[in-house]
Amino acid sequence: MTAQTTDAPSTDAPSLRDMANAVRTLSMDAVERANSGHPGMPMGMADAATVLFTRFLKFDPSAPKWADRDRFVLSAGHGSMLLYALLHLTGYADMTLDEIRNFRQLGARTAGHPEYGHASGIETTTGPLGQGIANAVGMALAERLLAARFGGSVVDHHTYAIVGDGCLMEGISHEAISLAGHLRLSKLIVLWDDNGISIDGPVSLSCSDDQRKRFEASGWATDAVDGHDPEAVAAALERARSSDKPVLIACRTTIGYGAPKKAGTSGVHGSPLGAVEIAGAREALSWPHEPFEVPAAIRDAWATAGRRGSADRTAWEERFATLDPDTQASFTRAMAGELPAGWTGALDAHIAAIIADPKAVATRKASEMALEALVPAIPELIGGSADLTGSNNTRTKAMKPVAPGEFDGRYIYWGIREHGMAAAMNGMALHGGVIPYGGTFLVFTDYCRPSIRLSALMEQRVIYVMTHDSIGLGEDGPTHQPVEHLMSLRMMPNVAVMRPADAVETAECWAAALNRTTGPSVLALSRQNLKPVRLTAEAENLSAKGAYVLREASAAPKAVLLATGSEVEIAMAAAEALEAQGIATRVVSMPCWELFADQPAAYQAEVLGGDVVRVAVEAGIGFGWERWIGARGATVTMTGFGASAPAPELYRHFGITAEAVVDAVKTRI
Amino acid sequence: MTAQTTDAPSTDAPSLRDMANAVRTLSMDAVERANSGHPGMPMGMADAATVLFTRFLKFDPSAPKWADRDRFVLSAGHGSMLLYALLHLTGYADMTLDEIRNFRQLGARTAGHPEYGHASGIETTTGPLGQGIANAVGMALAERLLAARFGGSVVDHHTYAIVGDGCLMEGISHEAISLAGHLRLSKLIVLWDDNGISIDGPVSLSCSDDQRKRFEASGWATDAVDGHDPEAVAAALERARSSDKPVLIACRTTIGYGAPKKAGTSGVHGSPLGAVEIAGAREALSWPHEPFEVPAAIRDAWATAGRRGSADRTAWEERFATLDPDTQASFTRAMAGELPAGWTGALDAHIAAIIADPKAVATRKASEMALEALVPAIPELIGGSADLTGSNNTRTKAMKPVAPGEFDGRYIYWGIREHGMAAAMNGMALHGGVIPYGGTFLVFTDYCRPSIRLSALMEQRVIYVMTHDSIGLGEDGPTHQPVEHLMSLRMMPNVAVMRPADAVETAECWAAALNRTTGPSVLALSRQNLKPVRLTAEAENLSAKGAYVLREASAAPKAVLLATGSEVEIAMAAAEALEAQGIATRVVSMPCWELFADQPAAYQAEVLGGDVVRVAVEAGIGFGWERWIGARGATVTMTGFGASAPAPELYRHFGITAEAVVDAVKTRI
Repeated sequence: MTAQTTDAPSTDAPSLRDMANAVRTLSMDAVERANSGHPGMPMGMADAATVLFTRFLKFDPSAPKWADRDRFVLSAGHGSMLLYALLHLTGYADMTLDEIRNFRQLGARTAGHPEYGHASGIETTTGPLGQGIANAVGMALAERLLAARFGGSVVDHHTYAIVGDGCLMEGISHEAISLAGHLRLSKLIVLWDDNGISIDGPVSLSCSDDQRKRFEASGWATDAVDGHDPEAVAAALERARSSDKPVLIACRTTIGYGAPKKAGTSGVHGSPLGAVEIAGAREALSWPHEPFEVPAAIRDAWATAGRRGSADRTAWEERFATLDPDTQASFTRAMAGELPAGWTGALDAHIAAIIADPKAVATRKASEMALEALVPAIPELIGGSADLTGSNNTRTKAMKPVAPGEFDGRYIYWGIREHGMAAAMNGMALHGGVIPYGGTFLVFTDYCRPSIRLSALMEQRVIYVMTHDSIGLGEDGPTHQPVEHLMSLRMMPNVAVMRPADAVETAECWAAALNRTTGPSVLALSRQNLKPVRLTAEAENLSAKGAYVLREASAAPKAVLLATGSEVEIAMAAAEALEAQGIATRVVSMPCWELFADQPAAYQAEVLGGDVVRVAVEAGIGFGWERWIGARGATVTMTGFGASAPAPELYRHFGITAEAVVDAVKTRI
Repeated sequence: MTAQTTDAPSTDAPSLRDMANAVRTLSMDAVERANSGHPGMPMGMADAATVLFTRFLKFDPSAPKWADRDRFVLSAGHGSMLLYALLHLTGYADMTLDEIRNFRQLGARTAGHPEYGHASGIETTTGPLGQGIANAVGMALAERLLAARFGGSVVDHHTYAIVGDGCLMEGISHEAISLAGHLRLSKLIVLWDDNGISIDGPVSLSCSDDQRKRFEASGWATDAVDGHDPEAVAAALERARSSDKPVLIACRTTIGYGAPKKAGTSGVHGSPLGAVEIAGAREALSWPHEPFEVPAAIRDAWATAGRRGSADRTAWEERFATLDPDTQASFTRAMAGELPAGWTGALDAHIAAIIADPKAVATRKASEMALEALVPAIPELIGGSADLTGSNNTRTKAMKPVAPGEFDGRYIYWGIREHGMAAAMNGMALHGGVIPYGGTFLVFTDYCRPSIRLSALMEQRVIYVMTHDSIGLGEDGPTHQPVEHLMSLRMMPNVAVMRPADAVETAECWAAALNRTTGPSVLALSRQNLKPVRLTAEAENLSAKGAYVLREASAAPKAVLLATGSEVEIAMAAAEALEAQGIATRVVSMPCWELFADQPAAYQAEVLGGDVVRVAVEAGIGFGWERWIGARGATVTMTGFGASAPAPELYRHFGITAEAVVDAVKTRI
């Protein structure tokens, strides 16, 4: 096979190098035409990726969503043209040559970075570095969980990722690597594009890590090969597939391989090559064809490779057909992201029980109570916490933990890895078949924020159980007290921030989060006990409307109090006091602004009241409430960071009190 | 010395174990009294910390801000009582026994987690895990930079940090460790509290890392000792001080050492011990004293240890006095955080030159131009970028990079380590003597957010140079286009978000950021070229007022357009169009909301106009603008994520145009 690794054009069957050169030239041509993009990485990794896609990756372009396909993650998402070229050449119908030619143009499937949902075969959105490798960990974990549930004849595939130096320098990579090694996710194989170049120049300017040693310290097997030697890459992949650990394969490559002057330099990283260099690359690669032209023989070879997985898929379908119908139905349903029939029954009974015997509980505890009903009813719910299990109340009594090499549990001890947890949950949701939820303190949404944003951008149902949601956590102080977090998560498009006021609302919010299939939800839950405010049975999920009249005024309202979560009881007390002074006052509970914003305008207007005084009370930054309180409104909210003290003292100290609400109303009426 | 490591009470001079037991019992008593806190870590690390504070750490409680003191960082900030007990016992005047007794109470210096500024000797705010070790890297780097500038006779100290398992699991630790190893910060010594316990239980539930191997992979020297053997700890510290690499010392400890039943379990991590266990610990530690009581002999021994550094300080002052007066003045000024006299001169000249020859430039380029004036004028400015130097335009021509072991440069190649960069910049600012600025893309403020929050909470002058600040970056697409970031950073208390509209405003914002000594600034800068809007010389820094009338209406304004950054030119075009249609229109440029909010109400009212139609235009999420536009207002802003395409197309596609502004005004007038 040595001859195939030279740059000489083959006279008979196309070599792997010929096939890789199709990837290279499509990439450089598309970047050139867009006058924008990153040619260096696709040109450098084309050989290794060609080996992976033509000999190892199990996939079928004619059935891109086949459940047991291998997952491929381009963690170094700036090299998007590598993926687009591979999808095009292997025969994904929606990745046409026109799409390649329209790289980075408005409406094209070929966005600057791979965007999940834009085209078949894009398994996740990447670009923000390090996210992809952590997504891949989540995918590999989901695969093991599903294999444990449904058996190895139905679920048995690998997850491959290509990462760059940037991915490995990002902190999130540590969390992902450490977790994968700990859990012994042996079907995860990472190809590192070891090209020694980052945007600023040689990696040695900023990094001296021994990456193989680092991965080995976290329980990985590692290997190193010449990334331009197809047989060496193939041999390493073969070895990796039989490892009992996750595997890193360092592929030594030349960034921009083929570009005569710019190869091996940062100049080829993020800019078009330019006409002269492109001409030189065509020469160097012995590729005399026009831009975007791929000779028929090479096209055919790629198409053949793309049909390779069809037999695997057929065999899988045959195996699947032999399963009992219930298992088939459960698997199909779970992979489709549909909830099991009757899943709300246990939750409805739980709500009825709360209303029958109302008690003050923290909403974090109420969340656990809701989960006790939901977890048995929804087998694909997978819980976890970033080392705050007892504080987040995320583990139900019956949940068995997942352990190294043992995947028949449903609870993940994520460790102190909030960012890795969030990104892995994205990977789990993307894989399908599981619905992940994970907990930490609300303040640490900051640690997960890049991944929460990707949950939102990719429209994934990931449920963030974020407890200790205000100064109400007390003594841990300002480093642990979220103040801006509620509002800054509300700012993020397509995130539903849900802050329930009591146990009933908490159960309703869980239902709303599970029903929300087009994006993530953040449940913001109290550490402290809250008085029940929902005392009667309702025919519908009021929290799912986002906001609703919790307490109607005794007459046409002069004041409307808007509150969320733990401050709803303050609003209720203020309303009592105002009514006692003859001021008709309505209380609106607003557990979820985003869901309320989705309601018809008439409903919104009805709930908010007309030209009345509206006062918002929330133990977070007030800035943003202007949206709902209108011109005559006021806020009883935080104006800065919290402090360390028992919670009741903090509420008094920061003036988040019923008295302050009463005063705010009276000075405006 | 072996006898000193037993638990038997000493009959003569107090042993190190006796001294450590004072730390243990103060810690458990304070947590018990507060009924809240983390006793396990202080009890576990008391022996090692006692060795560090009595024999190695160079400090003088009578001069807590002595510039050449060693820095000590309690990265495992939940163990705050360890630090408070050490500060109290070594004689920091403001850490009284009453403060210890008031642990975690409102107004106490002894907050739940160490809060910078609450008491002398607290070098940084910790609690959010992993931040402290990255702060320590920044401090160690600042020390080397200052030593290079002022010489080893003035600056020559160590940085010590105590980290827990949580710190080492957080992704930021990877960035910090990798950077410290790369730069060979050999005066950084990290003590790892290797107790094998996290909140969820044994660390083995979630982590199998070989930490020593991991640190060694990043160029550290490592050591491992019994953390309860003072002489072993001392010997390791002695070895560490002569290393030519940063050093990790794994201290094997028992969490909650001394608690008879709970020691070695997660039960002692974050909860008071309870009366029975406390009594048992007193027994086990042979500590028959009342709560908060420390016998005189042990107090004396601690006081003596606290006076140990006085001679060092005096010697340092003598050496300092021999320096030439200019160097003395420069050092004193830099450490005080004061800018050099006349620093604005070059900037003023730069602004005059721009006005004399106005050109369209991207504000990221304008920032580089401002830096070309500022960097020579302010020797303590230290720049850098997280591998986007050429995109962030953060490196001026004359700036020499810092390299491994070579610290006479002023530019840091931070690598793809946004979070580590931000936390290290906090450490640099806290160390004093340098003013750090660092760049990445605005969207990646998400990666730095926990550290930006700490810049704000600690009121540190850290300048974030965040470029590519909107859909105006174009083809990289929604993963790289900030939309919610401007607003969600404005939500964060004490962060000044500055978004200049042209080169003059950029220079003004740089001046405002440098003058802002009580918190961080985020400069949000465009990728794309912007038309100059500030065409005449002004006597004052208009941007420093936060907002100002950029273009007055031809008559009493009927409409006021509010805009920031790249959208100011859109507002100007809209105003022209509106004026042409007879609608008197004012344009207000609002580079910094926070600075505007600090202005007198009369100025604000004057700028915003009275009962007029106000329309805000900004290529970010509109939610939040309600604050300024009032009841009749409208926004021309983003409503969701961006897309991948050339920037001008995106502005049209998302309707951020002058036409849309004109329409918004006309439908409301």
